[in-house]
Amino acid sequence: MPVFQAPTRDTRFVVNEVLDLERYRHLPGFEAATRDLTDSVIEEAGRFVNEVVAPLNLSGDQEGCTRHADGSVTTPKGFKEAYARYIEAGWGTLAAPEIYGGQGLPHVIGFVMEEYLASANQAFAMYPGLANGAISAISSKGSPEQQAMYLPKMVSGEWLGTMNLTEPHCGTDLGLIRTRAEPQMDGSYAITGTKIFISAGDHDLCENIIHLVLAKTPGAPESSKGISLFIVPKFLVNADRTLGDRNAVSVGAIEHKMGIHGNATCVMNYDGAKGWLIGEENKGLAAMFIMMNAARLGVGIQGLAQAEASYQNAVAYAVERRQGRALTGPAEPEQKADPILVHPDVRRMLMDAKMFIGGMRALCLWGALQVDLTHKAATEEERQQADDLISLLTPVIKGYGTDMGYRTATDMQQIWGGHGYIAENGMDQFVRDARIAMIYEGANGVQAMDLVGRKLALNGGRAIQRLFAVIDAECAEESADDTVKLVAERLGKATGHLKAATLWFMQHAMADRNAIGAGAYAYMTLTGVVSLGLMWLRIAKVSAKALGGDGADEAFYEAKLLCAKHWALRFAPQAGSLRYEVEAGAETVMGLTAEQFAA
Amino acid sequence: MPVFQAPTRDTRFVVNEVLDLERYRHLPGFEAATRDLTDSVIEEAGRFVNEVVAPLNLSGDQEGCTRHADGSVTTPKGFKEAYARYIEAGWGTLAAPEIYGGQGLPHVIGFVMEEYLASANQAFAMYPGLANGAISAISSKGSPEQQAMYLPKMVSGEWLGTMNLTEPHCGTDLGLIRTRAEPQMDGSYAITGTKIFISAGDHDLCENIIHLVLAKTPGAPESSKGISLFIVPKFLVNADRTLGDRNAVSVGAIEHKMGIHGNATCVMNYDGAKGWLIGEENKGLAAMFIMMNAARLGVGIQGLAQAEASYQNAVAYAVERRQGRALTGPAEPEQKADPILVHPDVRRMLMDAKMFIGGMRALCLWGALQVDLTHKAATEEERQQADDLISLLTPVIKGYGTDMGYRTATDMQQIWGGHGYIAENGMDQFVRDARIAMIYEGANGVQAMDLVGRKLALNGGRAIQRLFAVIDAECAEESADDTVKLVAERLGKATGHLKAATLWFMQHAMADRNAIGAGAYAYMTLTGVVSLGLMWLRIAKVSAKALGGDGADEAFYEAKLLCAKHWALRFAPQAGSLRYEVEAGAETVMGLTAEQFAA
Repeated sequence: MPVFQAPTRDTRFVVNEVLDLERYRHLPGFEAATRDLTDSVIEEAGRFVNEVVAPLNLSGDQEGCTRHADGSVTTPKGFKEAYARYIEAGWGTLAAPEIYGGQGLPHVIGFVMEEYLASANQAFAMYPGLANGAISAISSKGSPEQQAMYLPKMVSGEWLGTMNLTEPHCGTDLGLIRTRAEPQMDGSYAITGTKIFISAGDHDLCENIIHLVLAKTPGAPESSKGISLFIVPKFLVNADRTLGDRNAVSVGAIEHKMGIHGNATCVMNYDGAKGWLIGEENKGLAAMFIMMNAARLGVGIQGLAQAEASYQNAVAYAVERRQGRALTGPAEPEQKADPILVHPDVRRMLMDAKMFIGGMRALCLWGALQVDLTHKAATEEERQQADDLISLLTPVIKGYGTDMGYRTATDMQQIWGGHGYIAENGMDQFVRDARIAMIYEGANGVQAMDLVGRKLALNGGRAIQRLFAVIDAECAEESADDTVKLVAERLGKATGHLKAATLWFMQHAMADRNAIGAGAYAYMTLTGVVSLGLMWLRIAKVSAKALGGDGADEAFYEAKLLCAKHWALRFAPQAGSLRYEVEAGAETVMGLTAEQFAA
Repeated sequence: MPVFQAPTRDTRFVVNEVLDLERYRHLPGFEAATRDLTDSVIEEAGRFVNEVVAPLNLSGDQEGCTRHADGSVTTPKGFKEAYARYIEAGWGTLAAPEIYGGQGLPHVIGFVMEEYLASANQAFAMYPGLANGAISAISSKGSPEQQAMYLPKMVSGEWLGTMNLTEPHCGTDLGLIRTRAEPQMDGSYAITGTKIFISAGDHDLCENIIHLVLAKTPGAPESSKGISLFIVPKFLVNADRTLGDRNAVSVGAIEHKMGIHGNATCVMNYDGAKGWLIGEENKGLAAMFIMMNAARLGVGIQGLAQAEASYQNAVAYAVERRQGRALTGPAEPEQKADPILVHPDVRRMLMDAKMFIGGMRALCLWGALQVDLTHKAATEEERQQADDLISLLTPVIKGYGTDMGYRTATDMQQIWGGHGYIAENGMDQFVRDARIAMIYEGANGVQAMDLVGRKLALNGGRAIQRLFAVIDAECAEESADDTVKLVAERLGKATGHLKAATLWFMQHAMADRNAIGAGAYAYMTLTGVVSLGLMWLRIAKVSAKALGGDGADEAFYEAKLLCAKHWALRFAPQAGSLRYEVEAGAETVMGLTAEQFAA
């Protein structure tokens, strides 16, 4: 069975040393986040997922979910018990507001738990993960009555939630939605329609499920400006929050998927189900984006999470499996063969992975900190800066993060050779589970367009200029350390390519909209490479300083410096070719007819 | 169900216009290959796989193979009947020697059928595919008696063959083999041991299976210099080629795999099975490499094949699925949404795929031609040149070709969005099936080391210098066509990076063996990019010329020129960053201890 140990040492390094979370303790919501507290939460969270959640990953994949003849859905063996322990320990409440029974800790800490859960068992993690999006939407756009009625039990995890957007003919283009919402005399709406691909759509983990459903009211405009968001509980909720009648929503089928078999991906049928409008009619898209943005960061974390889980298993195999000899002569002559860890190409894949994981963890937790600072920083300027940066980089964390998560899982499977292709060893599950993260919550091409078509242009390009200013300042800081100097130099160069690509878009955006679309993906990847580089510059600085200290943990910090150098020597050069891909424009991409493609 | 139509138009273009196969008609084995004949074979082959083989792909994946209580193995529904029709039509005999009942056509034509079969149904294609390797080994190294006894029925396809190399503890490092071969009084050997991952190890497609098995004779050296190759038939063969007793070889289990479910991947138990030595004792590795090299080209073709099959389905979906609007305004205002083919990022993925497929098909068929010329060219110099080029590029065709095959299948699945993740739509099967090609017949990292550690250095680097000479000459040819000029210029630049990387290896090979290993993969990818570019330069020249002709098929040739330009603008720039990755050397790759990786 695959191994997994939550990477608590590295998390604590990022939280305490790279982000230095304690320096924000003067801000509301950060007061309680002392180093002692966060360290112990991180270690406890690690222990919980190691012992309770990770052991169900492979078996959950093999068993999958079941829809029974009566339409009820059960999750794989052990999920229900594990989820009960999750609620009991209050793991879902870490970063939730205290007013609804949450612990009010920074999102940074909530993200740590999201990562660990997704690493240990992505299919399981999605049950509470989807609820987070629903909680965000109700928190931001729900009425006080709705918040009081639903949030306490959703925050505690006693009830879970879902996001119902997709229909058979309608995915990215939500303007096409056909699900109808007919206003009723009592102020509710009757919801009728079919939703597909509904993750955690039904299950046996908890007593109620709060569906958030996009639908159209009569006469609504025929575009995304005509969609509204509704709360549709599986069981109606009485005024005292006890459960009432079963609502008219049912599971038509569970999809057979490439992966995340332990999560019930449902076809949901709404047959005049009772729903309540969130916010105003026709303003559903804004509320949906609140759900979606939280979910997108969560999906980016899934990329990191599958990379981490597969990496651990690849390292374990590379140390144990013996095959061939080191190129420089037998490393262990008394054995018949050396561990495959001696082979440079095996190490290349492991170093690529370790570099990505370490940088991506820093990026995700830094992103979580920006989410906190968006609401809680001391000045309006700081709040705006945080919001600019996280808005800009959310599609990068989602898109680049999940691309690299899949690539890493594939590389780690490769280290296992033929044994990686055998289902029982679990390496292919990491690949299959990682694959969905590139697709859902906005396919990565949609992320690229969100970055280039929306985020770049907002407020005259303020966010990207802000990012450049941060990078330029950090590259310009003096350092005596050779690795820090190298990383700063290469990051400066890579950022130069990103600036050039940005300028190119500005010059061509008006004249050729398709050039924006044709270069968007390369631009997103380029921004991802640069973002990782910024993280490695910070990590290198912290590590160089720590090595000049009391001599503790030297091997850890030296490994960090080597990973930073690995980024500089092997990833930073990609920036040039990605820039040239942007500058290639749309001609070859837009030139063929449908017939020529099909010929 | 997924669609598939063998791409006969493009195959004929490569065979007739790019390779111009008819110009070799003065050579033995090419006489019969008139354009009329090859065209009709190509079209017939396409019809056969479209009608007989492709319809079994998805169902074969869903059903898989079954090992029964008596140890017998059955293939998915329809495979047996399809294979019977395959033999009946003589499809396996195209490029086989006439002396054994083959049609003696060039390998180019045999490769066409291999590609079509693998596109239509990779799991099915592997049954005859594996036999090809066994046939090659017996043809080259078997005794005249062995050839007479086994080859006629293997060539006709009445018997199939397997390659038994891997054991539980022993994959790449064949020196570790434990399977024993004890000499018997009658000149045979008793083979005892367990082999794993044996593709097509047992099945119900034909009456006998000829296993080629690597084993060690008593007292053999403890390395790959101590392995011997044996013929071990499932049923012993009488002198008159009728079948005798069942041999002591049995299937212990069928593996559960990520993909290629329709192929029975078996654990094979040899319990004193009767086997006959091929060639000499302890010379098994050389015979094995004959099987392996043929198989490696075949696996490279699988990369092309899965790219083609997934591409066809992505184009079909992109034309049919409506979502969103063109960036330049509604393309079909009367509809509620435009086909997703209007979106530049969808087209980017399709163009990357079309470029790879068109270039890779030319590269594979050009490779097949070199295999033919190695044996049949008029002069020793031409034979040697062909051998140099195909030896050099075999690991590139296998390694880069399958990497790109997987990437393409993943991109094509991406175009399907969430529907691509649903098993019934078949897009995930292309990804799962394509994945194995990066692993088997030597994992792609092993290919990279074969290229850099062996092929580069052979004969003082003669092969790579030969490749450079070919490219330089073809880039230097004058052309009036702008695309041809652009492609030549960019190919020249990319080749400059490859030359620099080659020089870097020459300068560092002695001092730092690990630097060779650390850069090998990037070097293989770089060679792949350049090889595709060479093909696109040729294709562009042919197409520019055809467009100056009678005006027939203009859309086809214009699409070719645009694909060539796509390579020049969007793939050629990768050469720079790949070269820098080579030049990064081994420091960051070799620097960490096992403990640091695990921390």
